[in-house]
Amino acid sequence: METIEIYGNVYASDCPTRQVLDRIGDKWTTLVIGVLEEGTQRFSELQRGIGGISQKMLTQTLRNLERDGLVNRTVYAEVPPRVEYALTPLGETLCAPIAAIRQWAEENIAEVSAAQTVYDSQD
Amino acid sequence: METIEIYGNVYASDCPTRQVLDRIGDKWTTLVIGVLEEGTQRFSELQRGIGGISQKMLTQTLRNLERDGLVNRTVYAEVPPRVEYALTPLGETLCAPIAAIRQWAEENIAEVSAAQTVYDSQD
Repeated sequence: METIEIYGNVYASDCPTRQVLDRIGDKWTTLVIGVLEEGTQRFSELQRGIGGISQKMLTQTLRNLERDGLVNRTVYAEVPPRVEYALTPLGETLCAPIAAIRQWAEENIAEVSAAQTVYDSQD
Repeated sequence: METIEIYGNVYASDCPTRQVLDRIGDKWTTLVIGVLEEGTQRFSELQRGIGGISQKMLTQTLRNLERDGLVNRTVYAEVPPRVEYALTPLGETLCAPIAAIRQWAEENIAEVSAAQTVYDSQD
């Protein structure tokens, strides 16, 4: 039996990794995964945790993450039905890289803002 | 003299880190920084290195990176003028987090694609 290794190359325009790269870099994805890193969450808990995210955007982000196999959605047959979201094992492997990006943004915002001010004053 | 510490919180909707998070997660930003990690590049070298990027998109991405203080643009007074792009020290601090994201996309594309196929077959 032959094993075919699939390994992407983000620098090739027709490689599907491009699409994945776009998704995992998305601001809302980064924030949702950060909250789910704390553990299973309901929709309303996620919405409260992420300032400014609309219901529509959160729904879409969770659906994409579920489709990519990064998030599990579990519906409990209660009245009213309880819906919970949790990272899959694959989703958990994304936590560290995404946390590093988030941390970079938080730690370097002052320097970035200063650079923007200088740049904008040159015109 | 008082020192004011500026430290962002990406979970607050009005925090400027949100904008930075959006930029550094952008697919093209990720790819441009990856090529500049190899060293100083001309525009044409960047364009060749990144499959499928348009001239307009590359120009815009470089301008944003320059404004954020992540990339230096140097114009040499030659005929025709030579323009080179290089990471700033701040930009270099982004290489490791961004490489981790890129690597994750390349390593896990097969698993993500498989999850998408399962998800799409459920409808």
